[in-house]
Amino acid sequence: MRYLKEEDIDRIAVGAAILGSGGGGDPHIGKLMAKQAIKAHGPVQLIDADDVPDAALVIPSAMMGAPAVMLEKLPNGGEPEMAFRALENYLGKKAHAVISIEAGGLNSCIPIYTSACLGLPLVDGDGMGRAFPELPMVSFSVGGVPASPMVICDEKGNKMILEAIDNAWSEILSRTATVAMGLSSMLGIYSMDGATLKRLAIRGTISLAEAIGGRILEAGRSKASPVDAILEITRGFRLFEGKIVDITRDLASGFMRGMVKLEGIDSFKGRLFELDFQNENLVGRRDGRPVAMTPDLITVLDKEKGLPITTENLKYGQRTVVMGMPCNPFWRSEAGLKQVGPRYFKYDLEYAPIETLAGGRR
Amino acid sequence: MRYLKEEDIDRIAVGAAILGSGGGGDPHIGKLMAKQAIKAHGPVQLIDADDVPDAALVIPSAMMGAPAVMLEKLPNGGEPEMAFRALENYLGKKAHAVISIEAGGLNSCIPIYTSACLGLPLVDGDGMGRAFPELPMVSFSVGGVPASPMVICDEKGNKMILEAIDNAWSEILSRTATVAMGLSSMLGIYSMDGATLKRLAIRGTISLAEAIGGRILEAGRSKASPVDAILEITRGFRLFEGKIVDITRDLASGFMRGMVKLEGIDSFKGRLFELDFQNENLVGRRDGRPVAMTPDLITVLDKEKGLPITTENLKYGQRTVVMGMPCNPFWRSEAGLKQVGPRYFKYDLEYAPIETLAGGRR
Repeated sequence: MRYLKEEDIDRIAVGAAILGSGGGGDPHIGKLMAKQAIKAHGPVQLIDADDVPDAALVIPSAMMGAPAVMLEKLPNGGEPEMAFRALENYLGKKAHAVISIEAGGLNSCIPIYTSACLGLPLVDGDGMGRAFPELPMVSFSVGGVPASPMVICDEKGNKMILEAIDNAWSEILSRTATVAMGLSSMLGIYSMDGATLKRLAIRGTISLAEAIGGRILEAGRSKASPVDAILEITRGFRLFEGKIVDITRDLASGFMRGMVKLEGIDSFKGRLFELDFQNENLVGRRDGRPVAMTPDLITVLDKEKGLPITTENLKYGQRTVVMGMPCNPFWRSEAGLKQVGPRYFKYDLEYAPIETLAGGRR
Repeated sequence: MRYLKEEDIDRIAVGAAILGSGGGGDPHIGKLMAKQAIKAHGPVQLIDADDVPDAALVIPSAMMGAPAVMLEKLPNGGEPEMAFRALENYLGKKAHAVISIEAGGLNSCIPIYTSACLGLPLVDGDGMGRAFPELPMVSFSVGGVPASPMVICDEKGNKMILEAIDNAWSEILSRTATVAMGLSSMLGIYSMDGATLKRLAIRGTISLAEAIGGRILEAGRSKASPVDAILEITRGFRLFEGKIVDITRDLASGFMRGMVKLEGIDSFKGRLFELDFQNENLVGRRDGRPVAMTPDLITVLDKEKGLPITTENLKYGQRTVVMGMPCNPFWRSEAGLKQVGPRYFKYDLEYAPIETLAGGRR
């Protein structure tokens, strides 16, 4: 058990954006929200899942929607607490702790913000160990926890309590509400007891994000290669180095779907890389051959600074490193792959681990 | 105070469909639901708004969505009570009575169904005295009652409690939810106290529907003209007699929007009539000149039987009478016209009462 202070947030935000696999939101806004809340309310206690009593209530706090929109349509600051408190009220029980639903620049920081504002501890972990685009893509859902009752709030003050018949319907109904609210919303969702949390949480995500972020920021100061440090700590692979030469994006579905093309530079000169995304990066192809696929993590980094570039921030001409990292073993189970593997996303691809596809090249 | 029995429902359903102005749903399904509920639970007490104590809670029960869909996607029978009870629970108070939100073949019968199932009295009145397509188009809204908290249920068992910042947002968020639920849903909405009910309800709609329906069914038995009887009781006007020669419909917006064209028959031979609708009939033009416009009622009848044809049941080749009827004076106020007048629906038309536009021809 320890406390997260303002100065820890930079490391967590940037490290979580690496784990976000292109999604989970821009770290800048998440960082500002979390820091401002700690400044106003004091440090946030970071606890282990095992510290939560079996019967205690834990509520994940998260943002839903297209991260691109969050760059311009900022939260007003009240809606994460509003969603959290409304779900407590609806359940008729006070929460013992907050947890993150996914790792990401925004979705790792919003729970810190909520914890600080409400004076509740934050569990060191989440429901993915990375970011995924759809609500049922969390360990909690795979383990049988209903997403609803869930609360959906927007920055205007609209609030919705949803009780869906299953998590697929929770996704459909909250997604359409989020689109109507202007493509982003704040959630209280997947409420669970401590015993369920211990069974299903992906452990230690906040600490891992902090360690990754720490190495990036240190490398920046010492002029060492941040990419090598990240690859080491995440057991990742350098999939490509290239310049972005084409990018398409479409928000019509309520997700940000698209594709980015890169032309190789340095030791990858003359080669090509294509990367598909739905909020998060899904499948990377080098010279037409898949070298990484969901649920393994694919993250695009700025080549010089080693900072992650989320999918909404990809731009023509950026010089990047594409790295792949093995996902948490939870997702490589049959149940995990059914929910988040390439076939779920309509790819005619059999999942193969990144260690097989990209092995040998670090 | 009296009781509605199974045999009263035929008259109410058909009369309410006349008042529905093309909308409010097909009377057949509403009739079946109300009759079945009365058969199972006994007659429904019909009370006057003045019988409701000032502090007692009244909740309108209604269907939302595109009536065309209800012809095939039937309610499962549980969702009107589910929506009603969920709103009671959320408000933490038991309701004293049920009321209809609008007059219509379905939306006048669903509250009878709900009353029967829950053993609650039904208020003789509604919030429109006709049907309109959007949630804020009720006297309750014009008089300051918030639509939310509202409950939205579907036939699959999904349930949503909405607290919107105003009635326009209630419309947006419940409409998108209804579309996602498959274009129809059941609501508990516009909860209010008895004092507010007395101030704002359009009185006597159920009795009026019953009287109109009674005249139509009697006329059918006596071979008299049902149309003349309806015109007399509603102080209405015969706007046109014609055969449907063209019809367009579009459900993409969650409403059924469209237009029907008629070629004159009998004394209207050689003349043309065009009628626009958004769930309900909005503006009727005879030979290019408007002869009736919202909020006045426009209803298309089967020429032989005098039965109303709701907009989803209009078909090529039908021989019809188009009639116009003056709306409740409530809607002719400045506040009323602002919410439901032709300009609200984007027509470049100044409202003129049907007595002026069609006067002289009964």
